[in-house]
Amino acid sequence: MKDCVFCQIVAGTLPASKVYEDATSLAFLDIGPLIKGHTLVIPKKHYDPLMATPPNVLAQLMSVVQKIARAQVKGLQAAGVNVMQTNGRAAGQVVPHLHFHVIPRFEQDGHSWNWRPQAYADNEEMQSLALTIRQALV
Amino acid sequence: MKDCVFCQIVAGTLPASKVYEDATSLAFLDIGPLIKGHTLVIPKKHYDPLMATPPNVLAQLMSVVQKIARAQVKGLQAAGVNVMQTNGRAAGQVVPHLHFHVIPRFEQDGHSWNWRPQAYADNEEMQSLALTIRQALV
Repeated sequence: MKDCVFCQIVAGTLPASKVYEDATSLAFLDIGPLIKGHTLVIPKKHYDPLMATPPNVLAQLMSVVQKIARAQVKGLQAAGVNVMQTNGRAAGQVVPHLHFHVIPRFEQDGHSWNWRPQAYADNEEMQSLALTIRQALV
Repeated sequence: MKDCVFCQIVAGTLPASKVYEDATSLAFLDIGPLIKGHTLVIPKKHYDPLMATPPNVLAQLMSVVQKIARAQVKGLQAAGVNVMQTNGRAAGQVVPHLHFHVIPRFEQDGHSWNWRPQAYADNEEMQSLALTIRQALV
């Protein structure tokens, strides 16, 4: 897509620090890393969101995500790795081209996901939510 | 694994609000949701971390992640969806059994990922990081 920055990186009209490339996937450094070494894994073809992406494309991307995560552990001595993916502006998505964030993590690296669990009022509320999702499965 | 709470949920010895189940995968509500409806997708067999999971298992799980994300949009009218996965305590992992968090997001739902991008000192630092990861690829 003409106005998509990730498509422009794939086309070579925008620069990127590439980490991995094959026929269908590309991995390059996020220019605004949460932690240095933070890598994005994208399909070369424009897909968005995750929900509309063919399963075979997703399977291929995940094998690249695995490669990058392993290389972050081996090459950067990362103590852990986060894989993060956003769909929609409400979820924090900025570039509407499917991408997986693969983020190397270190002990005391200063990042916190701001993980503040809520509580369900009771078991009934939880069961009701589960039922609503279940009934919407296709 | 005997001491794994997710294996116990799979075995039925611990309760869970199930959302989806098939021969190899299970999806159930996180009891401490970031946003209500927050669902975990796991393989029934014990794998951990992502880097050590067979690609076919991962492909199957991602198709379930897609199902759940679609159902959160359809059933809960979510405006967006986050997919999040942790490897290692440094990355925030609590239960060492592969799981994908599928989190419905809404405009002004009160959650922030605390996304504070760092900057590379210069292009050289970025290229050097990319090279280090690239050289560690297998």
